[in-house]
Amino acid sequence: MPYIPLNEKLPGITGLLDYRKDTALPIRELTQILLRGASTLTEGERELIATVVSHGNDCKFCTAAHTAATDVLLDDENVTIKVKADIDTAPVSNKMKALLKIAKAVGKNGKLVTEDMVNNAREEGATDMELHDTILIAALFSLYNRYVDGLASVTPTDPAFYDRLGNILKDKGYLPSANRYADL
Amino acid sequence: MPYIPLNEKLPGITGLLDYRKDTALPIRELTQILLRGASTLTEGERELIATVVSHGNDCKFCTAAHTAATDVLLDDENVTIKVKADIDTAPVSNKMKALLKIAKAVGKNGKLVTEDMVNNAREEGATDMELHDTILIAALFSLYNRYVDGLASVTPTDPAFYDRLGNILKDKGYLPSANRYADL
Repeated sequence: MPYIPLNEKLPGITGLLDYRKDTALPIRELTQILLRGASTLTEGERELIATVVSHGNDCKFCTAAHTAATDVLLDDENVTIKVKADIDTAPVSNKMKALLKIAKAVGKNGKLVTEDMVNNAREEGATDMELHDTILIAALFSLYNRYVDGLASVTPTDPAFYDRLGNILKDKGYLPSANRYADL
Repeated sequence: MPYIPLNEKLPGITGLLDYRKDTALPIRELTQILLRGASTLTEGERELIATVVSHGNDCKFCTAAHTAATDVLLDDENVTIKVKADIDTAPVSNKMKALLKIAKAVGKNGKLVTEDMVNNAREEGATDMELHDTILIAALFSLYNRYVDGLASVTPTDPAFYDRLGNILKDKGYLPSANRYADL
């Protein structure tokens, strides 16, 4: 049971963003810019960063939601499974491996990002902005993971729920919209 | 040295918020609402939450900046020193002690917030919104701490720098403004 009264039809982050809409708006806007705005990283790659951070922070709702969004954007369920098991052997580019390791470290503590990790990402072709955005996405999902778990919001157990949510995140993005969760 | 090229005149978070202004704006707006908007917690109490989270996450820049902001808002340097040393014996209300312990836990991981911690805060008079805001402030500063340290931004060693920054945060808040850092 959540620690504060939330709309029972809106589990996980969805009920929290509904509870206080004035704080939800800038959180949604930041997420939209970082995960759906112009970038040299694909939307699937950016959702993968969100997935790895949430998984590293053991936030089950966020991990399942962004796994589903990544899967539908990549049209492949194999990548998230492999990345969550072992970044080094997962079927992603060397640049993404380097960025995902940085993101996972940030989710724990920013100080865990070493110069070697950054140099490795650069050698694999990562740009300043890709490094910046990877670290800010990881920091943002560190916020989400703590918001969701800190208030003990509900984590649905039906996998179909996350499939529906992943499709909403792909089709509608993160900004508020009328009837956003009509199909949830 | 920061991992990406930042304005050398803007250390810590200030250079990061200058580096990518489109992502900085919603971060600033969220902070302004939570730390300066209408609330039953004072501005000093909310800066104290930011301080405790940053201290728990060992982010030296954020800790020094929000310690300075708290000190100037409370007009007392004793509270932050005592709270960082031991929440239980610090000169704050029992409600604040309970909320600060929740905030510190959230900075590590949301799952560390227990029902007992929440019940204790309620018994000391905390409302739903105070619980929500404490946890979201802690989650937001978990973002800031990771953004600042993940990109290895510069941490000034001169205490006078943080006194100046604390006064800027008190007088100007968090929204963008012209010549915001003229006195930094």
